[in-house]
Amino acid sequence: MVHADAAKFAPDVTKEQAYEQVLDQAEGLFFEQRNWVCNLANTASLLWHAYKSLPAPSNQVNWAGFYTLDPQSRPGKPQLILGPFSGKVACQTIPFGRGVCGTAAATATTQVVGDVDAFPGHIACDGDSRSEIVVPIVVVPSAGSGGGEGRVVAIIDVDCTAPDGFDDVDRLWLEKLARLVAESCDWP
Amino acid sequence: MVHADAAKFAPDVTKEQAYEQVLDQAEGLFFEQRNWVCNLANTASLLWHAYKSLPAPSNQVNWAGFYTLDPQSRPGKPQLILGPFSGKVACQTIPFGRGVCGTAAATATTQVVGDVDAFPGHIACDGDSRSEIVVPIVVVPSAGSGGGEGRVVAIIDVDCTAPDGFDDVDRLWLEKLARLVAESCDWP
Repeated sequence: MVHADAAKFAPDVTKEQAYEQVLDQAEGLFFEQRNWVCNLANTASLLWHAYKSLPAPSNQVNWAGFYTLDPQSRPGKPQLILGPFSGKVACQTIPFGRGVCGTAAATATTQVVGDVDAFPGHIACDGDSRSEIVVPIVVVPSAGSGGGEGRVVAIIDVDCTAPDGFDDVDRLWLEKLARLVAESCDWP
Repeated sequence: MVHADAAKFAPDVTKEQAYEQVLDQAEGLFFEQRNWVCNLANTASLLWHAYKSLPAPSNQVNWAGFYTLDPQSRPGKPQLILGPFSGKVACQTIPFGRGVCGTAAATATTQVVGDVDAFPGHIACDGDSRSEIVVPIVVVPSAGSGGGEGRVVAIIDVDCTAPDGFDDVDRLWLEKLARLVAESCDWP
């Protein structure tokens, strides 16, 4: 298989169909491969090419990628660190609770922000970004290991140069993708 | 600082000037940050946007990124695993010695390939790629630690849809970048 074909999206697909292809292709790429860097790198590429195949505002996405829990976080001060992405150069670290990414990580809840400039503490890595969706990737301990609280290991972050670039369809499918990624990788 | 500005290249720069900016920006981004995933992710983005600012054939680069030494390699069978990149979905693992990337890793020498289809054992991750440059990232033990052999920890891989997309300028500057990256990151 020529791997690049996984990032080919037909020009007339709906947003639902594009996300469905992302999930199908991701699941195939994760088969017998649990390295988180490798899997997030390919997933960022899949997301980027999916958005670019869609009509506006989705094709105005200017950043799609991941931040993960920084192993160098100080005790009691968790922070995110930049992971694989497609787009322009980005901020390296983000404290939990700061901006859209930090809020999603600290609260373990998806943030859909129609106007990033109105979001308290927004971190402007790219002044062109107008809206953003951030979805936490939560690893839930298996019942066999005693269960317990979920752990935020990473976030999916997507930025758009159009306001209100994301809706409930994005939320629904990116949350599905987050669950797939959470269970398909070995996390540090 | 708005980080995305680091990926802005003037439209009339020469290839030397674009690479010089990549190195300058990378050095700035690596300041007080030695996380290899974070640093390689931003470097892949810098390279991608540098190539896109240049005339042909450089602007026909269709993949720019990294493979690293796979921690899951079997004893005596080292392999590369996909790291951060810009471009379409790519092959996850490559054995040392196989194709252009595997040859650069096994021999610790840069490979400049004008026609990938003529390279023995070429792995076609993307059928559109026509030429390729692969530069090993070698960590050299410090004299203080007793010196010794260099260790290939990763490779820089850049693909182009034009034949003969890379020349000695690319080799010179990507080898400089490889040395900077080697000494600026903590490798697993």
